[in-house]
Amino acid sequence: MTYCVALKLDRGLVFAADTRTNAGLDNVAVFKKLHVWEKADDRVITLLSAGNLAVTQAVVSLLSEHMSGTGENKTTLMNAETMFQVARLVGSAVRQVKDIDGEALAANADNFFVTFIMGGQIKGEEPRLFQIYAAGNFIEVSDDTPFLQIGEHKYGKPILDRVTRADMRLGEAAKMVLLSFDSTLRSNLSVGMPIDLMLYTKDSFSTDRHMRIEQNDAYFRKLSDGWSQKLREAFSDLDELDV
Amino acid sequence: MTYCVALKLDRGLVFAADTRTNAGLDNVAVFKKLHVWEKADDRVITLLSAGNLAVTQAVVSLLSEHMSGTGENKTTLMNAETMFQVARLVGSAVRQVKDIDGEALAANADNFFVTFIMGGQIKGEEPRLFQIYAAGNFIEVSDDTPFLQIGEHKYGKPILDRVTRADMRLGEAAKMVLLSFDSTLRSNLSVGMPIDLMLYTKDSFSTDRHMRIEQNDAYFRKLSDGWSQKLREAFSDLDELDV
Repeated sequence: MTYCVALKLDRGLVFAADTRTNAGLDNVAVFKKLHVWEKADDRVITLLSAGNLAVTQAVVSLLSEHMSGTGENKTTLMNAETMFQVARLVGSAVRQVKDIDGEALAANADNFFVTFIMGGQIKGEEPRLFQIYAAGNFIEVSDDTPFLQIGEHKYGKPILDRVTRADMRLGEAAKMVLLSFDSTLRSNLSVGMPIDLMLYTKDSFSTDRHMRIEQNDAYFRKLSDGWSQKLREAFSDLDELDV
Repeated sequence: MTYCVALKLDRGLVFAADTRTNAGLDNVAVFKKLHVWEKADDRVITLLSAGNLAVTQAVVSLLSEHMSGTGENKTTLMNAETMFQVARLVGSAVRQVKDIDGEALAANADNFFVTFIMGGQIKGEEPRLFQIYAAGNFIEVSDDTPFLQIGEHKYGKPILDRVTRADMRLGEAAKMVLLSFDSTLRSNLSVGMPIDLMLYTKDSFSTDRHMRIEQNDAYFRKLSDGWSQKLREAFSDLDELDV
C-alpha cells in the first residue's frame, strides 16, 4: 500500500508521499513515489504514484524518455502548454503501459492497478492539481475540496476534512499533512517512513522546498508527540457520557 | 456499509452500532444492528452485525427461534454454559444460513459477506467479547487490543488506538466510541445516525444502559462540536513546518 496526499491552496501546492512498497507482508522496501520535473522560470511538475510499482515506474520512465526525445511523442512534460495537456500526457503514458503489460499482468492474475496525483504550474497558468486513474482519464481538484488522496487514505482523512482551508500557509498545510501521515502510520503497517514532501509556492517556479522527512526527524517527532499529548488532553477535557 | 465497535474493559463491556443500511447509494434505511438478549441475574448477550442485511437478520432470527424451541438445537443463547458456547452457536447459525442461501446468493453474484461482534457475560464467567466471521469461526478479544471493529472501521480507528485503556470508566469509553463514530460519520456517507449504544457493567447482568443516540442528541452534538473546536485549537498550538 501507499499513502499520498496533495493540496491546492491559495498560496501554492503541497505534495507528500510515503516511501514503503511491499510485495506481501514480508518483502518491504523503500522506493520514491514523489517525482519532480522542473524547467527554470517556466514550470514545475510533481507526480505522486500509488499501485503496482512496476507500472508506476514504467509510466515515469516513459514520460522521461519522451522528454529526452527517445519516444515518438512531440508533446512532452517540458513543452506542454498547459497542465491539462500534462495530465493527458500522463494518462496516455498509463495507457501505453497498459497496452504493453496489461495482458501479461491479467494472465498472471495481477491487477493493472495504479493511480496518480499530478500537479504543478506552467507559466501563464495558475497552479493546478489532477488525479489520474488506471484508465488514463483524470479529474481536476475543486475549490470545495482542495485536497486529493491516493492509496491508504482513510485513517488520515478526518484531519484533512476538519482542518483544510484554502488560505492556509504552506508550512501550516505541511504540518496538517504530516499529522495525516502520523495517523496513517500508526494504524497501517503498509505505509512507512520516510515521507517525501514538496511545497510549491505559487509563481515561484522553484523546487527549493522539496525535502525528505526521516523517521528520526526532530520536527516530525515533536509534532507527533505533541499531537498525541494534545489529543489526550482534548479528550479528557470533554464531558463523559453521564450514565 | 456499517460501523460497529465494542470494547472489553476492566469495568465491563461497551457496544455501539450505527443504523444505516444501503442498497447502492439511493436506497437508504434505518435498521437495528445491535441486538441484546438477557436472562435476569444470569446472562446478558449483545450482538453487533455488519454485512448483507438479509443474512444478518436470518442469523438473528435463527438464534431467536432456537430459544423459543422452534429449531432443533438443544443449546441456545439462554442455556449455553459459557460465552464460548454462545460464540459457537452464532457461528453455527451463520453456517446454517450459508447452507440455505449461499448458493443462490453466489448464483446472483452476491457475496455471502457478514461479520459479527458478540459479547456479554454468563454467571460464573468474566465478561467476554468475540468477533465471528462469515465462515462461522471466531476470535476472542485480547488484553493487548481490547477493542473490536467491524464494517467501515478505518476513519474511527486512530482515536481508539490512541485513547483506549483497559481501566477506563464506561462513560469515558462511551465518549471515545462516540468520537470514533463522529469521525466516521463525517468522512463516510454509508454510516449514519442514530447510534445504538449499550454499556454493560461487569457482574450487573443488567441491560439498563442500552440507549439510542439520535442525530439531535444534546450530548452528542456538544461532544462533536467540542471535539472539532479542541482539535482545531490543538492543531494551531503546534509549531508549523519552518520552510
